[in-house]
Amino acid sequence: MGIKRIDHLGIAVKDLEASLKKWQELFAAKVGAIEEIRERGVKVAPLEFEDGSVVELVAPLGEDSPLEKFINERGEGIHHLSLEVDGIEEVMERLKNKGIRFIQEEPQKGAEGSKIAFVHPRNLGGVLLELKEKQK
Amino acid sequence: MGIKRIDHLGIAVKDLEASLKKWQELFAAKVGAIEEIRERGVKVAPLEFEDGSVVELVAPLGEDSPLEKFINERGEGIHHLSLEVDGIEEVMERLKNKGIRFIQEEPQKGAEGSKIAFVHPRNLGGVLLELKEKQK
Repeated sequence: MGIKRIDHLGIAVKDLEASLKKWQELFAAKVGAIEEIRERGVKVAPLEFEDGSVVELVAPLGEDSPLEKFINERGEGIHHLSLEVDGIEEVMERLKNKGIRFIQEEPQKGAEGSKIAFVHPRNLGGVLLELKEKQK
Repeated sequence: MGIKRIDHLGIAVKDLEASLKKWQELFAAKVGAIEEIRERGVKVAPLEFEDGSVVELVAPLGEDSPLEKFINERGEGIHHLSLEVDGIEEVMERLKNKGIRFIQEEPQKGAEGSKIAFVHPRNLGGVLLELKEKQK
């Protein structure tokens, strides 16, 4: 149970395909499969570096996407930091007891069958932090 | 020669000591030594997770710090993504040939004797990307 590691860094982009091509070309990272997560109004794709570290590009899916609002307000750019955890419900409970608020009270569906939860950026000096528990 | 891995994620904070304490307490990360980098007007400290992945907290050092300007304009929050490279001069040359512009033309002094260079965020969808070559 607990925080394990940085899972990935999420970067908000308008055009997923064009950005994947650019990052792949510039930094020789390996592009994974594009996945649509309709519940969250995003499509995502991982870019993997030699040692397995990952940047995730995230683009809005549809006009009601919360990410569309983010990009309109702040522009494209670094969006979130994702930490891999074991036992996401317990970690959330522990953080709530320390005064941390989450954007949703319960874990949501993330990419590749994971469970995720976002800490409210007001609680963490402007950082949008994702907790992610991988599918077992 | 080339891009190796994500080295760290840099987070801009106003009060380094208070933020270190908060992150350490919330996420049980290991705090490294605080280092002042006068040439860049910042003080930095690493927070290391179980598997060695690192978040770097960065705070302004003095009122002329470029980071002070960043925080005044955009607020605290995620500041840069750092990729570890081998042969930073060659990597910069290759990226320049692909149309990428750097904030400074030559590598600068980074933490722990490293050499670093920042890609201009306008070239990379708003992402402030640091290339970092560790001290040999």
